[in-house]
Amino acid sequence: MQPVLADSVRLTDEGVLILDRRQFPFERNWVLCRTAGEVGRAVEDMVTQSSGPYFAVLYGMVLEARAVGHLPFAQARARLADTARMLENTRRTNNALRKATKVVLEHVDAAQDVAHALNGALEGDRRYRAKSQALGEHTANLLPDNATVMTHCWADLYLTETVRAAQEQGKTLKFFCTETRPYLQGARLTAETLIEMGVDTTLITDGMGAAVLQSGQVDALVTAADRVTMDGHVVNKVGTLGLAVAAHAFGVPFHAQVQAPDPHAPTADHVEIEFRDGAEVLQVLGRPSATPRVKGHYPAFDVTPPRFVTTVVTDRGVFNAGELDEYYEGEQR
Amino acid sequence: MQPVLADSVRLTDEGVLILDRRQFPFERNWVLCRTAGEVGRAVEDMVTQSSGPYFAVLYGMVLEARAVGHLPFAQARARLADTARMLENTRRTNNALRKATKVVLEHVDAAQDVAHALNGALEGDRRYRAKSQALGEHTANLLPDNATVMTHCWADLYLTETVRAAQEQGKTLKFFCTETRPYLQGARLTAETLIEMGVDTTLITDGMGAAVLQSGQVDALVTAADRVTMDGHVVNKVGTLGLAVAAHAFGVPFHAQVQAPDPHAPTADHVEIEFRDGAEVLQVLGRPSATPRVKGHYPAFDVTPPRFVTTVVTDRGVFNAGELDEYYEGEQR
Repeated sequence: MQPVLADSVRLTDEGVLILDRRQFPFERNWVLCRTAGEVGRAVEDMVTQSSGPYFAVLYGMVLEARAVGHLPFAQARARLADTARMLENTRRTNNALRKATKVVLEHVDAAQDVAHALNGALEGDRRYRAKSQALGEHTANLLPDNATVMTHCWADLYLTETVRAAQEQGKTLKFFCTETRPYLQGARLTAETLIEMGVDTTLITDGMGAAVLQSGQVDALVTAADRVTMDGHVVNKVGTLGLAVAAHAFGVPFHAQVQAPDPHAPTADHVEIEFRDGAEVLQVLGRPSATPRVKGHYPAFDVTPPRFVTTVVTDRGVFNAGELDEYYEGEQR
Repeated sequence: MQPVLADSVRLTDEGVLILDRRQFPFERNWVLCRTAGEVGRAVEDMVTQSSGPYFAVLYGMVLEARAVGHLPFAQARARLADTARMLENTRRTNNALRKATKVVLEHVDAAQDVAHALNGALEGDRRYRAKSQALGEHTANLLPDNATVMTHCWADLYLTETVRAAQEQGKTLKFFCTETRPYLQGARLTAETLIEMGVDTTLITDGMGAAVLQSGQVDALVTAADRVTMDGHVVNKVGTLGLAVAAHAFGVPFHAQVQAPDPHAPTADHVEIEFRDGAEVLQVLGRPSATPRVKGHYPAFDVTPPRFVTTVVTDRGVFNAGELDEYYEGEQR
């Protein structure tokens, strides 16, 4: 069965339907965006996250193409370009959004017809899913039958495709997932989705990871990566580093998943770490969880050095953190 | 200024006043226990924790002594013994409770007068504070001026005495404290108390510790220990292990505070780890924070092997984790 979060941005005749991940799974509200502008606002407001904004931008472009379809091509194309810029700017650090607008505009330009935006969006959708599927299969190949996997935060399609591939290989997996404060993506998105997929899942707080890794119960630590540098630094949701260091100390392999290493980031110095509002650390789902007199500190990501990374799993297969150049071998970057 | 949590169990004419730590600092409710039975119930209900139950038991014994003061000594002494057993059983794994009843009964027996329970309780109070003070001074000696310290959970008087000693030495400390899920002792008790003491304090989630230790901002990791084995394993609130491993990986010393290593625990095999109800992991301050379909796992403590422990700080000074026998040198155990 397809878990709901793997299909949570949908194009309809009325607009783009986006499942609101902020309150999921406590509430299952779908936000209907009738225009590209409404899609942009939903992305900015964090209605969806992880791969969600990529799909939202693909279909947001289709909404704009529908709206300008009656205009002469040159004029319609200019409006689409404006919309692309607006959508890309909703999350400036998310490279995927530029890929989404690009694939749509390429189809429009090739056909000289804005109606071809739909084909572009579908192609972008298909490509992303195919890469995630390949990556999931490569990850599943690394896991023995009856493996217990620890994961952190919400790896989205990389996670669901890993589980699906393992299931197709006849393997049974168990998961430990960390709750992932402050937004609780692990407790809400990962735990619910794994259970939807029929996986035996156990939730722990973020501080318990080392103890569980030490206990010998875990066969592999598997997380997505927001970015992997060419020299093997893994940038991912804060908390990944602590788990990776503990996994290394207690002999558990760490597999980091990313479609491709970032050719524009030779090393960690080329990646800027986002600091979010420290006030987020003082609350849980909007309710105070700390003395209001303290200040919070919220580095959104951390950087795991390659010595703590066993393998990087990409859509093109599995690489050692020290040999990521091979991903692009024979290719002009 | 004495922070409120350092003086949060008080004997009055009406009974024992105990500050309710479960909702602190959001609410500051004092529970009045008029009898030893009410003290026992408050301890069982977790109104107070950490060193709180020790002080509650000292003064609970005094309440019982008051209640039986009119009886012949033998009869009153028997009632006191029953009360001691009842109070000790409110938290079976807490060795300190037996020390509290013992010091009270010793004074009663020496004077053959239950009215001397008060002297025993005051002596027990004084002793515990003196040891915490010595330990705090030894810890402060390890910290340079302007040190930034990371701590986990709530180290109670060890923390407040460390800060007080540092302040008396003219040192300014800064703290990072972890929120310590699921009960948020760090976010509530530690953060509030450090701020009461005028310390610059920053709160992080439990998953952020490794990133902050890697950043070079932290000079020392300092936590209390519930138990330290004779071969240097540190048993403390779950989450300590992950911080200790990360501190070791990034060259930050870890100082574990305990009044004395446990002569009855030669190694970690002799310490039973308490597993609490996994449902606690699925909520924050009583409100759901995870999908209700997942199961939780809650090891209350973890065990940090000596290779990740820089020093063990006791009331008798600072020891390497590998030479704790020296604590008892020249003493018959």
